[in-house]
Amino acid sequence: MCRQSIYYYICISQRKMVLQRSMVQRVVEGITFLFELLVKFVLSVQKVDPHPENKDDGYGLSWRLAVETNNVRGWKTVPPKCYKHVEEYMTGGQYEVDLKLIVDQILGYASQISVSSDGFDAWILDVDDTCISNISYYKAMRFGCDPFDSSKFKPWIMKGMCPANPVVLGLFNKLIERGFKVFLLTGRDQATHLKITTHNLHNQGFIGYQRLILRGAEYKGLSAVRYKSRIRKELEGEGYRIWGNVGDQWSDLQGDCLGQRTFKLPNPMYCIS
Amino acid sequence: MCRQSIYYYICISQRKMVLQRSMVQRVVEGITFLFELLVKFVLSVQKVDPHPENKDDGYGLSWRLAVETNNVRGWKTVPPKCYKHVEEYMTGGQYEVDLKLIVDQILGYASQISVSSDGFDAWILDVDDTCISNISYYKAMRFGCDPFDSSKFKPWIMKGMCPANPVVLGLFNKLIERGFKVFLLTGRDQATHLKITTHNLHNQGFIGYQRLILRGAEYKGLSAVRYKSRIRKELEGEGYRIWGNVGDQWSDLQGDCLGQRTFKLPNPMYCIS
Repeated sequence: MCRQSIYYYICISQRKMVLQRSMVQRVVEGITFLFELLVKFVLSVQKVDPHPENKDDGYGLSWRLAVETNNVRGWKTVPPKCYKHVEEYMTGGQYEVDLKLIVDQILGYASQISVSSDGFDAWILDVDDTCISNISYYKAMRFGCDPFDSSKFKPWIMKGMCPANPVVLGLFNKLIERGFKVFLLTGRDQATHLKITTHNLHNQGFIGYQRLILRGAEYKGLSAVRYKSRIRKELEGEGYRIWGNVGDQWSDLQGDCLGQRTFKLPNPMYCIS
Repeated sequence: MCRQSIYYYICISQRKMVLQRSMVQRVVEGITFLFELLVKFVLSVQKVDPHPENKDDGYGLSWRLAVETNNVRGWKTVPPKCYKHVEEYMTGGQYEVDLKLIVDQILGYASQISVSSDGFDAWILDVDDTCISNISYYKAMRFGCDPFDSSKFKPWIMKGMCPANPVVLGLFNKLIERGFKVFLLTGRDQATHLKITTHNLHNQGFIGYQRLILRGAEYKGLSAVRYKSRIRKELEGEGYRIWGNVGDQWSDLQGDCLGQRTFKLPNPMYCIS
């Protein structure tokens, strides 16, 4: 090997060493970057609680269950710590999933009933938060955490724009198709709300019911249970056989002449005794 | 520079290069390892669903709500797709949180009752999955996804080792302290289960009740609703005033002489009609 070529070799070796050193440096920088990424990712993931029911949601679930099973009665407002839970429940999709399963049960039951040709096989459906929904109104009332305020609720009703609960509208139509007479029974005041309620139900597709019954002057002051019991008794007196009775309040489903079977739809936002 | 030292330099350079090459190799291996770790971590994290209610858990929640509100009736087994949901519910803490809120409601109600000195103010508590728990047994039955099997359930009962529901034991003790007469009413068979049930309740701290009532031969073949109605009617016939009635089955809380108020404890594992 001549001296020149040896020097050349040394030069090449040194250049390679410099290149490799810079490569190592870059690799180390890369590892550091990846490690930082990993740490950031772990921290961001830790913020997502895989068991939300262990915190306030746990209380929210319990409270909602206790309300829906009628263990908590006569409550005036949703406990403030349930606000986020109820909001998520009403707007996050679970409410509709719950309604659907119940309506599936109702349809399963209804399909087993042999409907007579005499026109006296009846169903009773409640109106507010059964056929049509007040969720938009209750959103402004912190989903029931704020106390009921009739001065705000009445203008909402008078808009006549409560949207249908689509799954209950589907039930309504199927019951009528099957030949049942559907009675819509509500605690709304007949004198002030008959026209707008009729209009609202119509604009939401509730067409073909047998009768819409609002609270007349003669039932003023009665509890919801007693008022609705009296109406059902009158219907039975007319000869109707009440096969099913659907409402979001326990007061829709208690008292006399309840019908062969009652169905409780969820409503964690308010309680009517 | 002499030839020897040049060769020495070349040797050193080559050794350094080999060392650096092996270093680069290790660094690359390190990066690969870290990258694999990152991928595994991302995949494992993706399995944790921050909104379990959006998937099968959503159905589990709906099904459980429909059961607890008595919208789903006469069911034989828990739907298989609810298995993980019910397991998580029964073992993950939410069941106890739910029980506690209901017992708080019961105590709130009981505290308003003025207990007479005549010794006839009564409460009725169910036994299985009210006072004492069968969760351990139902765990082996996939929390009710497997059909009920009396050939397995009876040996479990005969161990006499059903643990207390601590929160219901607390309620039991407080009711007795307040001066109520507590009746434990169960559908268990009197001929075969009286001794072991008495022993089990005693070893779990249920001491001081007024009477433990099992299903005698004269009530065989009756539905749970009719059997329990008859017993409650007999108690009222003896002069007892039933203030509260607590059970995990709707059949505990339906029929005649229900008491002033009923309380439904959760049970998503089985249904007794």
